[in-house]
Amino acid sequence: MATVTELLLPIEMDLDHLLKDLRVLIGAGHPILQAAAEHLFSAGGKRIRPGIVLLISKALSADGKLSPRHRRLAEITEMIHTASLVHDDVVDEASTRRGVDTVHSRFNHKVAVLAGDFLFAQASWHLANLNNLDVVKLLSRVIMDLAEGEVKQGLYKYDFKQTLDSYLEKSYFKTASLMANSSQAVGVLSDVTSFELKCLNNYGRQLGLAFQVVDDILDFTSSDKELGKPAANDLANGYLTAPALYALEDNYKLSELIRREFSSEGDIEEALQIVRDSKAIPRTRKLAEDFAKGSSESIHWMPDSPSKRALLELPEYVLGRLC
Amino acid sequence: MATVTELLLPIEMDLDHLLKDLRVLIGAGHPILQAAAEHLFSAGGKRIRPGIVLLISKALSADGKLSPRHRRLAEITEMIHTASLVHDDVVDEASTRRGVDTVHSRFNHKVAVLAGDFLFAQASWHLANLNNLDVVKLLSRVIMDLAEGEVKQGLYKYDFKQTLDSYLEKSYFKTASLMANSSQAVGVLSDVTSFELKCLNNYGRQLGLAFQVVDDILDFTSSDKELGKPAANDLANGYLTAPALYALEDNYKLSELIRREFSSEGDIEEALQIVRDSKAIPRTRKLAEDFAKGSSESIHWMPDSPSKRALLELPEYVLGRLC
Repeated sequence: MATVTELLLPIEMDLDHLLKDLRVLIGAGHPILQAAAEHLFSAGGKRIRPGIVLLISKALSADGKLSPRHRRLAEITEMIHTASLVHDDVVDEASTRRGVDTVHSRFNHKVAVLAGDFLFAQASWHLANLNNLDVVKLLSRVIMDLAEGEVKQGLYKYDFKQTLDSYLEKSYFKTASLMANSSQAVGVLSDVTSFELKCLNNYGRQLGLAFQVVDDILDFTSSDKELGKPAANDLANGYLTAPALYALEDNYKLSELIRREFSSEGDIEEALQIVRDSKAIPRTRKLAEDFAKGSSESIHWMPDSPSKRALLELPEYVLGRLC
Repeated sequence: MATVTELLLPIEMDLDHLLKDLRVLIGAGHPILQAAAEHLFSAGGKRIRPGIVLLISKALSADGKLSPRHRRLAEITEMIHTASLVHDDVVDEASTRRGVDTVHSRFNHKVAVLAGDFLFAQASWHLANLNNLDVVKLLSRVIMDLAEGEVKQGLYKYDFKQTLDSYLEKSYFKTASLMANSSQAVGVLSDVTSFELKCLNNYGRQLGLAFQVVDDILDFTSSDKELGKPAANDLANGYLTAPALYALEDNYKLSELIRREFSSEGDIEEALQIVRDSKAIPRTRKLAEDFAKGSSESIHWMPDSPSKRALLELPEYVLGRLC
């Protein structure tokens, strides 16, 4: 099983380069933003999203070289992702993310709002200057989906009657839309056929959904330390993900606990046990496996290259996080 | 002296229509955002920005009719403006704006972040779907300038060594960029000459600067009640505007008060008196007059119409707020 570092090897230098560029771009001349940029774009993050953009760019390039526009697209992808994380953390009042302080807890929510706005603004400016209306449309759709997803997530809090479809829609908005549309945008810049554009979108969409579903399983199966946040954190906050929704199908008690918003002592622990004892986890894992399979099947038409092989292995890597 | 309602008469119905559209667009299906949208787009605001876009659109239209794309541009302008206000109020911790509770004080800062992001996202999506890359570039420049202006404003707090030029640059970013670029964008949609595009940009830029400079004078000359916020609020928060910067040129005491960030009792009142007693207010008024004059001179080439006449009178109206 490859690690993510091994998978991103074909574009390792390019990713380093990108992070350096982003730190300079965001931090230039603004001491507060500079500190926030250092914090956000320092080493450590997995950078899966710009990684996907760079790998697809390289896989589709005749000479294996990256154009400045492809690099810029990868940067824009990471800017949009980071901006939405920073603002989500304010809205969700999260104090850590993957074990690291969030911007609004390390600085304050004013800096977080400012830094997020600045990132979104830079992204939309650089996007326009890629000079391709189709790419602008794809990425502005992402920005809209991210906002829509955050709103929807709030609406569905503690809603034990929500369907698996509404959960998947929310997951598409919050995670998969960025991967789907940015993958397709690479195809637009690389001038591929409309069939291949659809395949790229599908690759990103299913990879993103697999990614989110796996994340949601880990929230139930990992320890606090492994997650870098309290286990069953989503559940405790009223965010019902696939494992909870499957478990709700045949457990009336669970809906009771959710209905009272885990207000009695021991409610969370009981709910967690119900989910773990049910068939919910294996069923959710099957869901993730199907998405992962659909993802890699979408790019068989690509010419063979180290980058293509990494792209084919990425969905496997995502599932591997469950081992 | 015409009132703003009289000036906007040629597009009164269109503005009503626009506000109704915006309330539906933003509020649909999200109870919290709906409340915020009602709050933001209810009657009462002057809606100068979409007003300018609609007036220019009408003045440049052969049959005096507005196309759906021109209307959409006006909506986008108001969305961007409103989004930036909502986030600025979080960053500045303002509890009221023009006598009305801000979103983050009426709801909370989480709703304010969400509502602002949602508005920015909608704006960027609708912008892309105007299908004109030049318009996308003009308006994404605005989004970047607004973020840059908010950052700059924070940087220059209590900086008594800042120049009038840096104040004007900040004012351009925060107020005039939107008017300049959206005015020019109307011209792009209406297919005018490149000379006329420049004139439209200049009209909006100088009108916006006049508008901001007048606002900054009123902060010194009005009572709390007239302003809907405490008088000398900017000064008290360390935001040094043209009157303060002019007064600083020949008053050493003022720089002392600013240097200690008005920390002793009576400092604000003393600073206010120094500015009022100096030649700063008449000098700032002259600055506003020059911008207003430059603004109306930029659109003499437009064919005569009620809308053109309203556009010519707008800079006068802006100065009239000082009477």
